Amino acid sequence: MERIKPRTLSGFMELLPRQQLQFERVKGTIEEVYRRYGFTALDTPVIEASEVLLAKAGGETEKQIYRFTKGDSDLALRFDLTVPLAKYVALHYNELSFPFRRYQIGKVYRGERAQRGRFREFYQADIDVIGDGSLDIINEAEIPAIIYHTFTAMGLERFQIRVNNRKLLNGFYAMLGWDHKAGDIMRVVDKLPKIGAEKVGLMLHDDLGLDQDSVGEIVSFMAIKGSNQAVLTALEEYRGRNEVFDRGLDELNTVVKYLADFGVPQENFAVDLTIARGLDYYTGTVYETFMLDHPEVGAICSGGRYDNLAEYYTEKQLPGVGIAIGLTRLFYVLQEQGMLNEGLPTSPCDVLVLPMTGDLSPAISFATSCRNAGIRAQLYTEPKKFKARMNYADKIGVPYVAFLGEDEIAAGVVSIKDMASGEQEKVVLADAPQWLQGRVSARNQGSVIRA
Amino acid sequence: MERIKPRTLSGFMELLPRQQLQFERVKGTIEEVYRRYGFTALDTPVIEASEVLLAKAGGETEKQIYRFTKGDSDLALRFDLTVPLAKYVALHYNELSFPFRRYQIGKVYRGERAQRGRFREFYQADIDVIGDGSLDIINEAEIPAIIYHTFTAMGLERFQIRVNNRKLLNGFYAMLGWDHKAGDIMRVVDKLPKIGAEKVGLMLHDDLGLDQDSVGEIVSFMAIKGSNQAVLTALEEYRGRNEVFDRGLDELNTVVKYLADFGVPQENFAVDLTIARGLDYYTGTVYETFMLDHPEVGAICSGGRYDNLAEYYTEKQLPGVGIAIGLTRLFYVLQEQGMLNEGLPTSPCDVLVLPMTGDLSPAISFATSCRNAGIRAQLYTEPKKFKARMNYADKIGVPYVAFLGEDEIAAGVVSIKDMASGEQEKVVLADAPQWLQGRVSARNQGSVIRA
Repeated sequence: MERIKPRTLSGFMELLPRQQLQFERVKGTIEEVYRRYGFTALDTPVIEASEVLLAKAGGETEKQIYRFTKGDSDLALRFDLTVPLAKYVALHYNELSFPFRRYQIGKVYRGERAQRGRFREFYQADIDVIGDGSLDIINEAEIPAIIYHTFTAMGLERFQIRVNNRKLLNGFYAMLGWDHKAGDIMRVVDKLPKIGAEKVGLMLHDDLGLDQDSVGEIVSFMAIKGSNQAVLTALEEYRGRNEVFDRGLDELNTVVKYLADFGVPQENFAVDLTIARGLDYYTGTVYETFMLDHPEVGAICSGGRYDNLAEYYTEKQLPGVGIAIGLTRLFYVLQEQGMLNEGLPTSPCDVLVLPMTGDLSPAISFATSCRNAGIRAQLYTEPKKFKARMNYADKIGVPYVAFLGEDEIAAGVVSIKDMASGEQEKVVLADAPQWLQGRVSARNQGSVIRA
Repeated sequence: MERIKPRTLSGFMELLPRQQLQFERVKGTIEEVYRRYGFTALDTPVIEASEVLLAKAGGETEKQIYRFTKGDSDLALRFDLTVPLAKYVALHYNELSFPFRRYQIGKVYRGERAQRGRFREFYQADIDVIGDGSLDIINEAEIPAIIYHTFTAMGLERFQIRVNNRKLLNGFYAMLGWDHKAGDIMRVVDKLPKIGAEKVGLMLHDDLGLDQDSVGEIVSFMAIKGSNQAVLTALEEYRGRNEVFDRGLDELNTVVKYLADFGVPQENFAVDLTIARGLDYYTGTVYETFMLDHPEVGAICSGGRYDNLAEYYTEKQLPGVGIAIGLTRLFYVLQEQGMLNEGLPTSPCDVLVLPMTGDLSPAISFATSCRNAGIRAQLYTEPKKFKARMNYADKIGVPYVAFLGEDEIAAGVVSIKDMASGEQEKVVLADAPQWLQGRVSARNQGSVIRA
């Protein structure tokens, strides 16, 4: 028979069982926090009509999209979870309650050039709050606060949520008379951390035609740094020159105040005037989250406030605020940097039950009791030698092996071997599930990222 | 602005929030049972190289496939989870331990003609056990036993797992001298429940050219019915005429014996000689599961034993046994038949916290305590009138609303309203999370399918 070489496409993450379990744990932590904040699950199709999905897209995104025909239909794979949300909210508007809080954790597709740590199929983990006509600014503080609690629940410590406001930026550029080029300027300023102030200045002057005074103003504005209070105080110097700027500054003050109320410590968020998210549709607060020890990774989570989610689909005014964790990329980095807590179990089961008699009934009934106690139990039924069975137990990394031989059955006990310590103990059969439950639960304590 | 009419493609399930929560619960039940049996999670890409995905496919499947090019790549969306498993096991053979037990719950794609209850994007929930070189027959009983426990955990009662054996069928057709047409015959016999014995007989004679004696033999063989023991006894009459048949009968006897050992009651499984799964690659035991009150739905779960999972990718002999629940279809039926337990909460949160003061801190800190106790808590922060807030609470169907006004804060209590009974109670702030926890947990008791 002619064989096909098995392969997985480049840019598509496919994990081995142990890593998959770690991935599930990271994903599960995110989902659990999102749920506890009252977000409802959503699951939209991976495929949409191209007309619907590309109602707004353009530029880079459109080039990267997976688009194809099937029969007469022009179809495309979703490239984010925001456009499907906009479609969903416009389509089901009458059946939803607003503010509508939804989370979605799903795969999205972008045919980017494959490179290390870049994926063509990747999970995003999004939350959005959508208002009907209006949405209070408090949501702009709660959303990054939820992200703070999400990363903290994972055990991540050295991260910072950087916050800015698009009105502040737009108002500032308007002050200088460059509001018509605000988008272009933001795209250049976005390169600041990579290329430095000097090159940004040159680009603003040479490429966008800004005068030297304006360039100077922009560079010194972007150089405003310090504690959140220091930055906010410095910004007060600009107040009174542009109404949009003043509104942006008020919003930024409010968000900073509420972020503290929501329990986010000062060291985990910072007002950062260089954050713009220029390519996106944001109109107010914007966020980007960075790992402090791995700035080279870029933002692991970003989002912001938008005034009109679904304008391409409906005349309804649907303002919202949302944020997305780049889950696949985050997991890749955690793994690559050795940050995952290897102390947590990654075996497919908690106990491997080895029947040592022809009659399987006692082993089956013990495995069933374990499962009823929430323990993941696998019955090993292959007719292999004892050594091969123990090799298997070793290879899958199972923490406990339970033996049920004639002697054990007669005595109403089960012999349980702790694979880590090598110790073996006889436990009364009826007590064994609880005995295991306590130990398994102890092994599952601890966050997914190591301290 | 020109607007695009928002729509979701036909054949793609997209649920409203409450239904989505019910779906998550069905999916979660399946996943939890699979995990407790020691299956490890797998998550393979939705897109694969066409060459890899279609190594074996043909006929109907190939026509239905979503296939397209991106750059120079010929790509396709997975149409089941078995082919990706075969690829995975062949590709990662050296890094896996056998027997390899994996579950995968994921979306697959088939461009079928859209019709009620048929989906083009749908979830399958698969388990497979793969051996290296050999795999004990006990697995062929454990797999349907796990399915029994899965459906039982959902609260489904009136279902039956029908079991047969391909060796038995192949051996039987060989007895009659028609082994070279066994596949074609099985495809005709497969129509038995729909078109009846007479038409099957005609098709066997007219279309396949079988003589009347053979047709008679087949029709009476398929008519063997009764208790499992009665069917097995009747089959003994055929023993000794064909070696493959005898082996199949031995296997069937063994599987039936172990199914009882695994705790599957007689009424939930039946030896059914008409089950063939003729189009598939099965070589031993085969299964199909039916809802007894909804035979029109067809099989909600099917699978079987195969001798060589990955022969298109590797020379390694990898026998296995697996089964797949058609999750999207199952959910559609449960919903359509009104079988879902509407008593379980479908609100996005368990408690809606209404701050009644300008200072949000007490409300935030109460919501945080609730979340730490595992309660899904939403803070309502929109500046709306009291009536609008209560309308929102009604619309999202939240079971409890917590009020924190000046009086409550001064007295160190929180007023909690049970939205179902309309009763309102003042609870000491520090005790309130536990007070809610007990009530919320009680509301979550019960299975996803109503009794």
